[in-house]
Amino acid sequence: MIFPPEEFAARTAKAQAMMAKRGLAALLLTTEPDVRYFTGFLTRFWESPTRPWFLVVPAAGDPVAVIPGIGAALMARTWITDIRCWSAPDLSDDGVTLLADTLRELAGAGDIGLPSGHETHLRMPLEDYARLAQLLAPQRLTGDGGILRSLRLVKSEAEIAQIAEACRIAARAFARVPEIARPGVPLSQVFRRFQVLALEEGADWVPYLAGAAAHGGYADVISPATDRPLESGDVLMLDTGLTRGGYFCDFDRNYSIGPASPAVRDAHARLIEATQEGFDAARPGATAATLFEAMNRIVTLGGGGSGAGGRLGHGLGMQLTEGPSLIPADTTELRPGMVLTLEPGIDLAPGKMLVHEENIVITDAGAAWLSPPADPDIMEIGT
Amino acid sequence: MIFPPEEFAARTAKAQAMMAKRGLAALLLTTEPDVRYFTGFLTRFWESPTRPWFLVVPAAGDPVAVIPGIGAALMARTWITDIRCWSAPDLSDDGVTLLADTLRELAGAGDIGLPSGHETHLRMPLEDYARLAQLLAPQRLTGDGGILRSLRLVKSEAEIAQIAEACRIAARAFARVPEIARPGVPLSQVFRRFQVLALEEGADWVPYLAGAAAHGGYADVISPATDRPLESGDVLMLDTGLTRGGYFCDFDRNYSIGPASPAVRDAHARLIEATQEGFDAARPGATAATLFEAMNRIVTLGGGGSGAGGRLGHGLGMQLTEGPSLIPADTTELRPGMVLTLEPGIDLAPGKMLVHEENIVITDAGAAWLSPPADPDIMEIGT
Repeated sequence: MIFPPEEFAARTAKAQAMMAKRGLAALLLTTEPDVRYFTGFLTRFWESPTRPWFLVVPAAGDPVAVIPGIGAALMARTWITDIRCWSAPDLSDDGVTLLADTLRELAGAGDIGLPSGHETHLRMPLEDYARLAQLLAPQRLTGDGGILRSLRLVKSEAEIAQIAEACRIAARAFARVPEIARPGVPLSQVFRRFQVLALEEGADWVPYLAGAAAHGGYADVISPATDRPLESGDVLMLDTGLTRGGYFCDFDRNYSIGPASPAVRDAHARLIEATQEGFDAARPGATAATLFEAMNRIVTLGGGGSGAGGRLGHGLGMQLTEGPSLIPADTTELRPGMVLTLEPGIDLAPGKMLVHEENIVITDAGAAWLSPPADPDIMEIGT
Repeated sequence: MIFPPEEFAARTAKAQAMMAKRGLAALLLTTEPDVRYFTGFLTRFWESPTRPWFLVVPAAGDPVAVIPGIGAALMARTWITDIRCWSAPDLSDDGVTLLADTLRELAGAGDIGLPSGHETHLRMPLEDYARLAQLLAPQRLTGDGGILRSLRLVKSEAEIAQIAEACRIAARAFARVPEIARPGVPLSQVFRRFQVLALEEGADWVPYLAGAAAHGGYADVISPATDRPLESGDVLMLDTGLTRGGYFCDFDRNYSIGPASPAVRDAHARLIEATQEGFDAARPGATAATLFEAMNRIVTLGGGGSGAGGRLGHGLGMQLTEGPSLIPADTTELRPGMVLTLEPGIDLAPGKMLVHEENIVITDAGAAWLSPPADPDIMEIGT
């Protein structure tokens, strides 16, 4: 396990204090990051949609796992000792009765909270959820009041160390991009070879890689690679979320294939300036919206701000993106331990954008870089 | 796009015929594979949990996308022409009103079906789902009657070709495992280097890799790698779900580090025999349960069958695992075009199992191998 039991016990105690305030008798968790947050249960097996997994955090005492038997051995290696299994898949009762019995035992007649707000979902079939609610009635399944979101917003020192390690690995991979990118190489090959670089530098997995290459800027930032070969004049952008120990980095780098045009050079320098403004504004007491405004002021000089991404950064950690969102409406107050991306974009022309992204952590004294901040001069390859 | 528009139009027409039978006025889809099934929208961006994505399949006419603006450019490259966007994330109304308006427009007062059964989930916040139901009432959100499951069970020729290509890539990577595995190499390094082999051989991504290495068999099949070095006498198992063009393979290989013990050798040969029995039984008209029984008869000779996985195989395609499940209770009838894994396991001792897995496709004449079937003799490395 990546973290000692004390880390998970502390998280559980914090959750229970918040549950007491909200009058919740238990939390019911169903997604990979929420289950892992309290257990350390780390596996790629969530890629299979077949089996639901449940964790119950009671008002007092340790969490209880209600899981398919295939996960029993791995869960037993975590700090969790109360592990209740069924043989899944069970087409007539896929853990629902076992879960209902467990919830009644641990929560009595009290309310059970589930993460239900922005950026959450319920990872179990809707029909099974309806049946669970029937079995439990009049006991109520309700929202968790944002407890999980609130807990996961602020990272522990151990979590920050993992994210920092992921960032260092990605930085080494980005520094080696000149080894794999040159005119004539298809973007799809650049994507494969960048993943290889990330693995060679120590990534456990590369769950996310997006990017683009096009003359003078690109049309979007979420597309998979095409087989079009790189050409001189392209701006190549690679944006990766690799993981180490189950924690993500999420930042990008832009490269000019051949000499950069003045417009691309200027846009890149302005993005770095905007990122620095965001960094300077990032301190306890500022808000997510503050950072948006600080960066947006720079990228909209001359009218070129990009709205395509919908925001200028976000939290990250066990997931590629987490709360808060750097948008005007998000007034989440920054606190030490929050890990954020700064991600300004500039539209140079219709369908021609540049986006830059770095990762930072909020400390008592302000912000600290987790990714090594890029130079204002866009890196040129093959000049 | 991987497939021509005709492929997606045919899928839509099939869905609409099934909707008509069930009296559904629209389907509402929220997950990556379900949205991609009707659109071809392929991106790793689903890794970010922040934004919901919606696709509405009306009773007649083409599907309509209701998506965050960040996906507009990529969706516009698919065959979908009616693309309705909002600027996400929107903390007060994250697409819910736009979706409700679209559903009312396309479905009138008719019922809207959502995948709700086994192996499904709803990928949007529960609170937003409740608000959507309120906005639409008295129009009903209900189950899809298994339409998506039924459609996706049978693959088209184009889909089977993608899965076959993924299998060929994995087979080449498995053949190169002797390059990366030898006594003294930590399992975590084997995992990284196997992913590199998969990418070198043509994988787009390696979303799934599980495995283990232990003396005389392993304790489970879903754990991530530890840093323990390989030792002579270990059975090394690697099980990968790599993707090409958005389609998975899912099969494994076992290797003996140094000479295999008689018990390991016999168990491996029995697993290959069981797999062959499953293959021979796999033909149109047989059921998922038939395949289970065929393989289970062999692996339980002498009492050593393994129940840890909960099943002896499953479907695969756009996801690592899909229906049906090879269990006694699953009476799904096999039809040409179904792609399945055969995955028997044997317990040699408590905490010491071997699992073997191959991929097949059901044809009119019987089964055909998609993965190249392994030899009965376990491959020995370093002897």
